[in-house]
Amino acid sequence: MSRLDSFIRRLEAQRACLGHAAALVRDLDGAVLELGLGNGRTYDHLRELVPARDIYVCERHVAAHPDCIPPDDRLLLGDMFDTLPAATFLAGRVALAHFDAGTGDEAANRDLAAGLRPLILPLLRPGGILVTQQAMEGPELEALPNPEVVPHARYYLYRRLP
Amino acid sequence: MSRLDSFIRRLEAQRACLGHAAALVRDLDGAVLELGLGNGRTYDHLRELVPARDIYVCERHVAAHPDCIPPDDRLLLGDMFDTLPAATFLAGRVALAHFDAGTGDEAANRDLAAGLRPLILPLLRPGGILVTQQAMEGPELEALPNPEVVPHARYYLYRRLP
Repeated sequence: MSRLDSFIRRLEAQRACLGHAAALVRDLDGAVLELGLGNGRTYDHLRELVPARDIYVCERHVAAHPDCIPPDDRLLLGDMFDTLPAATFLAGRVALAHFDAGTGDEAANRDLAAGLRPLILPLLRPGGILVTQQAMEGPELEALPNPEVVPHARYYLYRRLP
Repeated sequence: MSRLDSFIRRLEAQRACLGHAAALVRDLDGAVLELGLGNGRTYDHLRELVPARDIYVCERHVAAHPDCIPPDDRLLLGDMFDTLPAATFLAGRVALAHFDAGTGDEAANRDLAAGLRPLILPLLRPGGILVTQQAMEGPELEALPNPEVVPHARYYLYRRLP
């Protein structure tokens, strides 16, 4: 399998999991948190999936397509290890969070996911869904099955326990 | 349609067109020319599709995944407007060329395609196939139908006339 093949598979998994997560939180009030803006493709997709929600986006340096830049008051600008603990206004208010480290370095991605996990958890409301490309197991999170088209361990879905 | 949706569509079109082009040149000797390395995903895919061919790759500054960097003697390093005219050893020897400007700026992509077209043509052998994300019509090229899964004008396939 070429890198083009695996990249397409990863994007399709991401799209399927985000759609599934949006359906899971349909009856759950709360904000959306995108952990990393990047080029803005996933943010743009979330805007389409959940247009009525406040979507907050973490980013160190904004370099997205001009059409895909969140309004200033929805942008958590800076290092996530600083901005997430400071985002107390989001504590227990996030219904859907998405994390995709987005680099090709799997070891670095895993370390980043492990480091961010304790910072994301306090923001999720009970019943809130975490969609992540890296595993984030733990006692506060119930692992959910992926949508049918996404093989196990390609993407991860968790529900925040009460 | 979100930017995530359209990006997935574009990558799927690229993969389908490259596979189709590789089948079209199966009985045609010649090298492969990738116009732009980028992150190396398409180059990696071409290596899988046509492993027995010499694959030459144009790139200004190599920034691909370390596994996806061509050997030095297959890399045309520098501005394509300099390196393509200088690649006289490839004149009339390319059986399959692929161009994807790869930026989100459609006007700039079209200009780049128009500028590169006269530099690519002399390298293509008669019967050689040009796969391109930007249209490159002209009297030297026969427009070919896309594979069934790729709508008209999403990607382009041409055959070099004798």
